[in-house]
Amino acid sequence: MIIGTGMIGGSIGLALKKQKLAAHIVGVSRQEASIKAAIEMGAIDEGSTDIRKVIGGADLVILATPVKVIIENIQDISKNLRRGCIVTDVGSVKSTIVETAQKCFPPHVLFVGSHPMAGIEKNGIANAREDLFKGAVCIMTPTDKTNRLARDKVKHFWTCLGMEVRMMDPDQHDEILAYISHLPHLVAFGLMRVIPDDFLPHASTGLKDTTRIAASSSKLWGDICFSNYRNILKALDEQVKSLSEIRKAIVDKDESALFVCFNQANAKRAELEKKTHG
Amino acid sequence: MIIGTGMIGGSIGLALKKQKLAAHIVGVSRQEASIKAAIEMGAIDEGSTDIRKVIGGADLVILATPVKVIIENIQDISKNLRRGCIVTDVGSVKSTIVETAQKCFPPHVLFVGSHPMAGIEKNGIANAREDLFKGAVCIMTPTDKTNRLARDKVKHFWTCLGMEVRMMDPDQHDEILAYISHLPHLVAFGLMRVIPDDFLPHASTGLKDTTRIAASSSKLWGDICFSNYRNILKALDEQVKSLSEIRKAIVDKDESALFVCFNQANAKRAELEKKTHG
Repeated sequence: MIIGTGMIGGSIGLALKKQKLAAHIVGVSRQEASIKAAIEMGAIDEGSTDIRKVIGGADLVILATPVKVIIENIQDISKNLRRGCIVTDVGSVKSTIVETAQKCFPPHVLFVGSHPMAGIEKNGIANAREDLFKGAVCIMTPTDKTNRLARDKVKHFWTCLGMEVRMMDPDQHDEILAYISHLPHLVAFGLMRVIPDDFLPHASTGLKDTTRIAASSSKLWGDICFSNYRNILKALDEQVKSLSEIRKAIVDKDESALFVCFNQANAKRAELEKKTHG
Repeated sequence: MIIGTGMIGGSIGLALKKQKLAAHIVGVSRQEASIKAAIEMGAIDEGSTDIRKVIGGADLVILATPVKVIIENIQDISKNLRRGCIVTDVGSVKSTIVETAQKCFPPHVLFVGSHPMAGIEKNGIANAREDLFKGAVCIMTPTDKTNRLARDKVKHFWTCLGMEVRMMDPDQHDEILAYISHLPHLVAFGLMRVIPDDFLPHASTGLKDTTRIAASSSKLWGDICFSNYRNILKALDEQVKSLSEIRKAIVDKDESALFVCFNQANAKRAELEKKTHG
């Protein structure tokens, strides 16, 4: 059962159907239109707007909504899940979700957190793609309380969708993501805001690439910011400090200090190219 | 004659040869190896490391080095150019270059500033491409002192290389470029510096796209920062202010203030997509 038939939820449905991994998929959304579109695309077999009504029939639940709704859903459905039901999620922040799940779910519900890292600056079921996860990384965040069988089954699930699965502590996930994903989004949002409208027609690929993720959903990223605010504020402060060092070198006309800054960035960017695939 | 046989200079040579627009191209570089490579690639017909020795024979000179070297070259060659020689450049900053040219060149040398805006995060003759300029924008910055014939000839030159030419005042160029190009570069440099090394293997396309231009040349961008520092400092301060507003909304847990910030970015990013081509 997929809760949230947007871009991510819809893509999971399409991928499962393509791989013939699920006989019958139920999709849940607050929006009738989203369910209808997901059925038409073949991402789900049937849908409902009432999560509590259908959740009792699920063997596997994928929570695929923005972080805040994932947390609300965990609280809502915790008493209604059948014994042995496996639950995972796709949230970009893990500590609060894992904590909520461990607090709310009874022992017979087997939860493990997941974060499939697939490009998501476009939202909605219309942007769902069966190959979205192929070759991308999924970080799973089991803890010492996580059922091993559930962990292995969910790992198998993401692997079948073509993902490389990495295991990590929820807190470690949130700290890493604050730097490699959340900060770049805030920087892109922040940058896009300061470009005067009448300068836009002269922009070339540099600005476009740098701000691609500034097209990401406000709702989704608002949730992420509030859920991971400690790590995000730390990263944001370091970004401002980094810009201030560059600013100082320019003001001081200190060529060697500026080169040190730029060379650090060059070297790290070369590492990034080497250490990531795709 | 192309002064500077790097990525841009080499690409100009290759494009001219491909279009059969130049019978004989002389390339000048301080590095013998760069000249040799440019000849082997067919970007130039012959080369020299001594600009003063060869410059007197040129009808058209393209200054294709970093901004600081362009300014030094203008000062160096000003007395050695033949009557009616047309000179242009490819510098990313225009006011200082145009001012230096107007001050140094005698009336019989016809200068007009150019800025072909083609992707340049990779440097050196090895990255030269004959199609680099195709479909890209070239901003030219004639002033009321610019010879009209020279302006039209240089415009024709860039158009033949497949560029869309736009005319602009040098100061206006520098202000616009500070926002749409120089600031994004500093933001990308600044961002790349703060990502801890051991987090890099987990990065996905978001960080990679946002920091693609952080691979740009330190030398080139140092020059640009010092040549356009007033506009760049203004843009940099606005970026820090923009990040501070986002930070405040997160600290205050002010969801609606944060949405306002993100929605502004979303709307402007959608405009950017509409208003640019490619």
